[in-house]
Amino acid sequence: MNKYIFGVDIGGTTVKCGLFTESGELIEKWEIPTNRSDNGSHILSEIAETISEKRKTDIGENHDIIGIGVGVPGPVQGSRLVKKCVNLGWGEKDVAKELEELTGIPVKVGNDANIAALGEMVNGCGRGCRNLAMLTLGTGVGGGIVLNGQIIEGADGAGGEIGHIHVNDTETESCGCGNKGCLEQYASATGLVRMARKAIMEAALETSLKDDDTLSAAYIFAKAYEKDALASELVEEYGKLLGKTIAQIACVINPEVFVIGGGVSKAGDLLLTTIQKYFRVYSFHASRQTEIKLATLGNDAGIYGAMGMILN
Amino acid sequence: MNKYIFGVDIGGTTVKCGLFTESGELIEKWEIPTNRSDNGSHILSEIAETISEKRKTDIGENHDIIGIGVGVPGPVQGSRLVKKCVNLGWGEKDVAKELEELTGIPVKVGNDANIAALGEMVNGCGRGCRNLAMLTLGTGVGGGIVLNGQIIEGADGAGGEIGHIHVNDTETESCGCGNKGCLEQYASATGLVRMARKAIMEAALETSLKDDDTLSAAYIFAKAYEKDALASELVEEYGKLLGKTIAQIACVINPEVFVIGGGVSKAGDLLLTTIQKYFRVYSFHASRQTEIKLATLGNDAGIYGAMGMILN
Repeated sequence: MNKYIFGVDIGGTTVKCGLFTESGELIEKWEIPTNRSDNGSHILSEIAETISEKRKTDIGENHDIIGIGVGVPGPVQGSRLVKKCVNLGWGEKDVAKELEELTGIPVKVGNDANIAALGEMVNGCGRGCRNLAMLTLGTGVGGGIVLNGQIIEGADGAGGEIGHIHVNDTETESCGCGNKGCLEQYASATGLVRMARKAIMEAALETSLKDDDTLSAAYIFAKAYEKDALASELVEEYGKLLGKTIAQIACVINPEVFVIGGGVSKAGDLLLTTIQKYFRVYSFHASRQTEIKLATLGNDAGIYGAMGMILN
Repeated sequence: MNKYIFGVDIGGTTVKCGLFTESGELIEKWEIPTNRSDNGSHILSEIAETISEKRKTDIGENHDIIGIGVGVPGPVQGSRLVKKCVNLGWGEKDVAKELEELTGIPVKVGNDANIAALGEMVNGCGRGCRNLAMLTLGTGVGGGIVLNGQIIEGADGAGGEIGHIHVNDTETESCGCGNKGCLEQYASATGLVRMARKAIMEAALETSLKDDDTLSAAYIFAKAYEKDALASELVEEYGKLLGKTIAQIACVINPEVFVIGGGVSKAGDLLLTTIQKYFRVYSFHASRQTEIKLATLGNDAGIYGAMGMILN
């Protein structure tokens, strides 16, 4: 009898789904819209429905489903319980229990940033390693840590909340979390644009950057590739902050590899080499050779990681 | 047949030994001197000898030894291999293999700061929890992290090297590790004295502290308890730095409890409450209630943790 695993990554707009073999090979992937009406109360039943349909149409009658892995955009405890998912309209919710009742299949739940890290380990740039930390540089800064092949959920579901590491004592603006001086305020795409706005206003360096609608993290990196003085300085400071923070994290968990993902990571080599340069400066000698890599799975990291929770 | 475990903590001066029941109860503890002659090449055979003697004299003939846990003052890989122990005169050494050959008993090896953390979990202030981070504030700043009951050794044996987290960009003096601005340069007993010397020279606040032989971390705290202005300010800054750094660590691994040990921790409540105060300021909201406690096992943490590696 053939055995399969489903990997499901619930985002604010779409639910990404993957059907995998029992050894973790992707057979098929698809998406359904995230139904956020009625405080997201239809999301799990619609996931159960799409899984039920796939079982009927795409795999032979005589099969077994080992489990469903689910990623959610919020903190998770015990691989089951969601404390709060603002983006989905959820308060406290036993996602594993509800989806198990709807499908009759064992379910494991993980935070989206954490499962992305596991995904990169299972089938991305961290393949073959067992200890990895990932930073997702997007609208915010997400983080995920996998040690001994297991996601570090944390006592309060706040393991890998790398975006909220305090990095600046002099910040006057507040982070979304309420604190002042979080990594996310500088290292997210939004954070880089915020830094650029300040720098353009101060106009200490020559630049073709303007504080208008064209200003984005991607544009700043594009200009830095063209050797624009201010853009280059911004990218240098950006990479320095990330390299330094990663060096701090290495002193805590000393992973085999750091993975940089999210929209900003599309900036590629210039981002990576700048981070690496400063990591070498600030890291403890024993871990100075730790690899730093760009994520390779993109939007598929979630379904691979969700599947990986079942595979483990 | 009764079963036993040995826990051995090798320090630069003495080797602390403990005989435990199979459920982890301490039956007896003793010490032998650390023989550092000939590059420490007699240390393991003398440990084998003292264990052999105990087996003959203190436990009935008909018994079984489950294992020997060993703590060493240096990085360890795979619970077996020591890369370097400067204090003992050791270069790379397969401690587990050598001691197994000498005793015929399975051996597991851990870094001393890491096993102290495990010891506090097994029988100290972290009893009952499975996720703990410990800072040892002594001549240096050691660190140990235990997640899911397992020591986080790190890919290069540098897991829990909390003392070398970079915390200051403007430092001009070098840390023992070669970097500039490591936590240890401020948060060790030596570091606190160094800060005190600078502050006494600058003389910005009234104080009865003097830059002479009486100046020590313990004395600075004693003066702070007496409300000496400069000593109070030094303790405030000391606790702030530790609270902030612990908050950063919480964003990475979100443990259930932080444990503060080492000589400086004898300063007690004033140290603890100052650290707690600043942890609440800098921590991410989800982990803000994380407990911070003073270590309770003192010098016995090592033998308990060494035993704990076998118990796990």
